[in-house]
Amino acid sequence: MTAHDAVRAYWDAAEARDWKTFGGLLAADVVYQGPQTRERVCGREAYVRFNVEGFPGAWHVKIERIVGEADQAVSWIEFTGESGTQPGICFFRLDAAGRISEITDFWPDPYDLPESRAHLVDRY
Amino acid sequence: MTAHDAVRAYWDAAEARDWKTFGGLLAADVVYQGPQTRERVCGREAYVRFNVEGFPGAWHVKIERIVGEADQAVSWIEFTGESGTQPGICFFRLDAAGRISEITDFWPDPYDLPESRAHLVDRY
Repeated sequence: MTAHDAVRAYWDAAEARDWKTFGGLLAADVVYQGPQTRERVCGREAYVRFNVEGFPGAWHVKIERIVGEADQAVSWIEFTGESGTQPGICFFRLDAAGRISEITDFWPDPYDLPESRAHLVDRY
Repeated sequence: MTAHDAVRAYWDAAEARDWKTFGGLLAADVVYQGPQTRERVCGREAYVRFNVEGFPGAWHVKIERIVGEADQAVSWIEFTGESGTQPGICFFRLDAAGRISEITDFWPDPYDLPESRAHLVDRY
């Protein structure tokens, strides 16, 4: 399985709440990091629990893009939860056995366009 | 040149303020989008100007990761400007001539860890 395919399977399993398949894609020593909050989760069991319990309520993910190269891949998803839809970006690294061993997760929020470049852009 | 190499050259040229090389990597009809502000810049000339004039002051970029596949690539950079260092993530698409034709740019800011998952993570 390529890194691209592993990441597609990861999101398909998450969307299906198929935590057995989801866990099977992860290395036992997987490390998840969220640089924006400086949060970290270590190990497969803790990371599955983080996904099951950390995001209560109804949510759905739609894959916008996956780009994979060698042992790495990146996904851009659109996450829809109770507070609306927002983009999420994850960088993945796989170990030698093809299991996901590193996840770095970014959630970019809307912000105001700086005045300094407002004359250089259009809005959509 | 692969998409991975084109994106490395893009950031090297930006860091060097080599706007001639930078422009040469872009398709004439390049489209830049920033989904967080809903800003858009269309065309090579406007996009070079956006980079030259839109980000005054001293800044530096350090490539953290580039992942490329076929006509697409993603970069994760650390951008250091007057207000500190922050991650930036760009999704790129190349046209049939190998020039960068689409750029989607994300700037994730720090945010507070939600209480709902605080018991499921460590901090770093």
